[in-house]
Amino acid sequence: MEFTARQIADYINGDIEGNPEVKVSSFSKIEEGKPGSLSFLSNPKYSKYIYESNADIILINKDFVPEFPVKATLIRVENAYESLAKLLTLAEQANQRKTGISLQAFISETAEIGQGAYIEPFVYIGENVSIGENASIYSSASIAENVKIGDNVTIYAGVKIYKDCFIGNNCTLHAGVVVGSDGFGFASSSDGIYNKIPQTGNVVIEDNVEIGANTTVDRATLGSTIIRKGVKIDNLVQIAHNVEIGENTVIAAQTGISGSTKVGKNCIIAGQAGLAGHLHIADKTIIAAQSGIPNSVKNSGEILMGYPAIALRDFQRSSIVFKKLPDLQKLVYELKRQINEQKDLSQNKNNE
Amino acid sequence: MEFTARQIADYINGDIEGNPEVKVSSFSKIEEGKPGSLSFLSNPKYSKYIYESNADIILINKDFVPEFPVKATLIRVENAYESLAKLLTLAEQANQRKTGISLQAFISETAEIGQGAYIEPFVYIGENVSIGENASIYSSASIAENVKIGDNVTIYAGVKIYKDCFIGNNCTLHAGVVVGSDGFGFASSSDGIYNKIPQTGNVVIEDNVEIGANTTVDRATLGSTIIRKGVKIDNLVQIAHNVEIGENTVIAAQTGISGSTKVGKNCIIAGQAGLAGHLHIADKTIIAAQSGIPNSVKNSGEILMGYPAIALRDFQRSSIVFKKLPDLQKLVYELKRQINEQKDLSQNKNNE
Amino acid sequence: MEFTARQIADYINGDIEGNPEVKVSSFSKIEEGKPGSLSFLSNPKYSKYIYESNADIILINKDFVPEFPVKATLIRVENAYESLAKLLTLAEQANQRKTGISLQAFISETAEIGQGAYIEPFVYIGENVSIGENASIYSSASIAENVKIGDNVTIYAGVKIYKDCFIGNNCTLHAGVVVGSDGFGFASSSDGIYNKIPQTGNVVIEDNVEIGANTTVDRATLGSTIIRKGVKIDNLVQIAHNVEIGENTVIAAQTGISGSTKVGKNCIIAGQAGLAGHLHIADKTIIAAQSGIPNSVKNSGEILMGYPAIALRDFQRSSIVFKKLPDLQKLVYELKRQINEQKDLSQNKNNE
Repeated sequence: MEFTARQIADYINGDIEGNPEVKVSSFSKIEEGKPGSLSFLSNPKYSKYIYESNADIILINKDFVPEFPVKATLIRVENAYESLAKLLTLAEQANQRKTGISLQAFISETAEIGQGAYIEPFVYIGENVSIGENASIYSSASIAENVKIGDNVTIYAGVKIYKDCFIGNNCTLHAGVVVGSDGFGFASSSDGIYNKIPQTGNVVIEDNVEIGANTTVDRATLGSTIIRKGVKIDNLVQIAHNVEIGENTVIAAQTGISGSTKVGKNCIIAGQAGLAGHLHIADKTIIAAQSGIPNSVKNSGEILMGYPAIALRDFQRSSIVFKKLPDLQKLVYELKRQINEQKDLSQNKNNE
Repeated sequence: MEFTARQIADYINGDIEGNPEVKVSSFSKIEEGKPGSLSFLSNPKYSKYIYESNADIILINKDFVPEFPVKATLIRVENAYESLAKLLTLAEQANQRKTGISLQAFISETAEIGQGAYIEPFVYIGENVSIGENASIYSSASIAENVKIGDNVTIYAGVKIYKDCFIGNNCTLHAGVVVGSDGFGFASSSDGIYNKIPQTGNVVIEDNVEIGANTTVDRATLGSTIIRKGVKIDNLVQIAHNVEIGENTVIAAQTGISGSTKVGKNCIIAGQAGLAGHLHIADKTIIAAQSGIPNSVKNSGEILMGYPAIALRDFQRSSIVFKKLPDLQKLVYELKRQINEQKDLSQNKNNE
Repeated sequence: MEFTARQIADYINGDIEGNPEVKVSSFSKIEEGKPGSLSFLSNPKYSKYIYESNADIILINKDFVPEFPVKATLIRVENAYESLAKLLTLAEQANQRKTGISLQAFISETAEIGQGAYIEPFVYIGENVSIGENASIYSSASIAENVKIGDNVTIYAGVKIYKDCFIGNNCTLHAGVVVGSDGFGFASSSDGIYNKIPQTGNVVIEDNVEIGANTTVDRATLGSTIIRKGVKIDNLVQIAHNVEIGENTVIAAQTGISGSTKVGKNCIIAGQAGLAGHLHIADKTIIAAQSGIPNSVKNSGEILMGYPAIALRDFQRSSIVFKKLPDLQKLVYELKRQINEQKDLSQNKNNE
């Protein structure tokens, strides 16, 4: 399908600079901008590409001031990235969802599946499972007994959901996600042997949650591990037993959150961060990549970094000194030498 | 099923404080303690909840001294967490194991499977595989040729075991675990191209091992990667080729152990730690979260932390100074200024 | 099959020391060296084992000088590890590849599969997929619509490839790998809710790439995430959307590379490293384990370590001082005391 700059600007409420009749039929990155495509500029790092781009339409932020002439028709919007998202979503919606249940799937007789489902071969759906409307479940996904799933859920290939877990509406679980595996709970006996603590709880995932590929979410020992609505979790993240993640918190790849820690709402946790167990993390906390969080965070809106983590600014300032530590040490030794010299001098004087 | 406080105290050898006839039929966390349930208090962080809990029975450690009156009947035991484990295990055992082999599983004609097996649809069992008694194997698990597995093993959905590996009795592999994938072995040639070193060994997992979801254990180049009996491994852990993990060692989530490293017995390795290759780690070593271990650990019982790791206490003391490094640097510069001032002064004096 | 030392030396172009007629039929590690086997010594850490090894033939580097007599026949070569690789490869090739397509696989009518394929049960191959010759695809692998795959590819059990991705010739994807999952792209709205940016691009994997178990490679938002030819990636690695990895770069386990970062050719990235987004990493960069890379690397051949990463040598020197920071702090305070003392002294003198 082709759209003119005018049609697009109307849809995203933008202002056109250039030819409003130019047409595009695809998207491209600004550094690869192809004729007949729409591109966007959001991250200033990529500004230099706008002058050479062959894209016919480029979305830009309202406040962008070009330094050189731009060939493309520009559409100015409040937030170019958000407007792009809106257009990509429109394009995605044009692709019709598949429906139909494969005869090569295994679906327990006691399972209930809502209308509009798409279920691929080799999907396993256990006893007393209930799944809402318009589910898309890809090959080799496994949903164990008593799992309850809402409407409009997408479960990619090879997802494994253990028994008794709940998943809300509009959730997406990417390939290889594991939900409801046993928490890591063992009681050590005097002879060094570890005895398993049965993990009898479950996992509750609320509405509008997305979980990235090969991420693991353990079931609670007692009660529930809870992922609140709107949470977005990246790939290869570990969520331990009895953790609770607050609404609209985002967690980047390879982060690990230890048992029973409660993370607040609207937090941002960057990649490879690690949180100790039994903590409370205040709302809107921001945790930098690879940080290790040993203690609870009490005040909302703090920004933390380091191992162990401290205030981001403090960490950055200490890191600058760290780089030059050998020089600092040398200077201290030199001062010591000078002080001793002066001492000797003044002693000699006194002895004169 | 309902049990009285008296029945429970008898089973776990505890002392009752309060009404011995009160009955419970479920478990709950102390902070959610529901009427009709049994709860427990082990971590002192949660002590405050005991006074408001609606649980009817609460397990506590012998030495716990309440500061306020407690409504629930208390059962005092040596170790509340261990006693809870005992009760949860009893409750789990009341759930009968499923048995039966799905016709939708693929089982090679040359495979041998012991009595009492439960095998779900889409399980793949290759040639010459042998599996002991009472195995539970969940959907889409894949067990390649010549794998030998002991009795009472649980293999969750989507576990992949490569050919020629051994797994002992009473082992549990959680969903998505990979056992026996190729070690990361390549020889670089002069033109920068890497040539694969075939990984012709296998993985040997001894008895009573539990491995967490999506953890990977690579096969040896030659010989075996070995996980000794009683080892417990959490989710998303990487065990490289030719590694050996000693008896009853526990490894928390997202830790990585590089090739050919030998970890001793009864070690505790916290989350996201990394061990370099070709190391020997002494028995009972404790490694803190996110630590990077570059060298072998010779003395048993050391506690290490840091990147690179040093003695925990040293790391903690250095970390405290690290936080204030800019102040230290400032002070050093100030001392330098003062010394120069004094020098100038004394020179001036000498010149007078 | 048995081979004499003479036959083996001829094949790998080595020089024999000892009996050229001794025969071996297997491989063993030098520390376990079994009679009738061939072993090798490459890492000097293992030199001590050569004197006791019962292996009948041992490959050694040309420049190795034994300190004691060695029982085994030695074969001296340029690079013992490379020669071992050559022999192991020969042995592997003697194992005939399986062929045949299981009737219990699901293969779309519109898919095209080249000659010589081996496809296990429960493999899912979607619409318009094309796969070259001699593919080996293990159980429960899932290949979605429009995926194009080259010749001689091995796809282990439970690999999941999303739609529209490309995979070149001679690639190996280990069990649980996910290729083409959605990048982690969300635009936050003013109320804290995150709206998904559809990830409409794909993943392109060039020839001779190997990817380790449970590694995830996200599809691009627009355009392609690209893994160039000869790249080797270990287990549990995260490759985010729009990343590009240059030719013959190797990436060890549990490393994460954030969105849109371009890594050069012939780089070596050790385990658990993390790279921020939108960076350019020069060719031949070496990144030490657990390093955090916040900025682009402009000069080829740099070696980096730390969090945040700096030049390896600087990090090591600073780390040595870090260990003794409390002592340094103490010394600074002591110098301050002495300076104040001297000041007081000289003031007193002046006042006298």
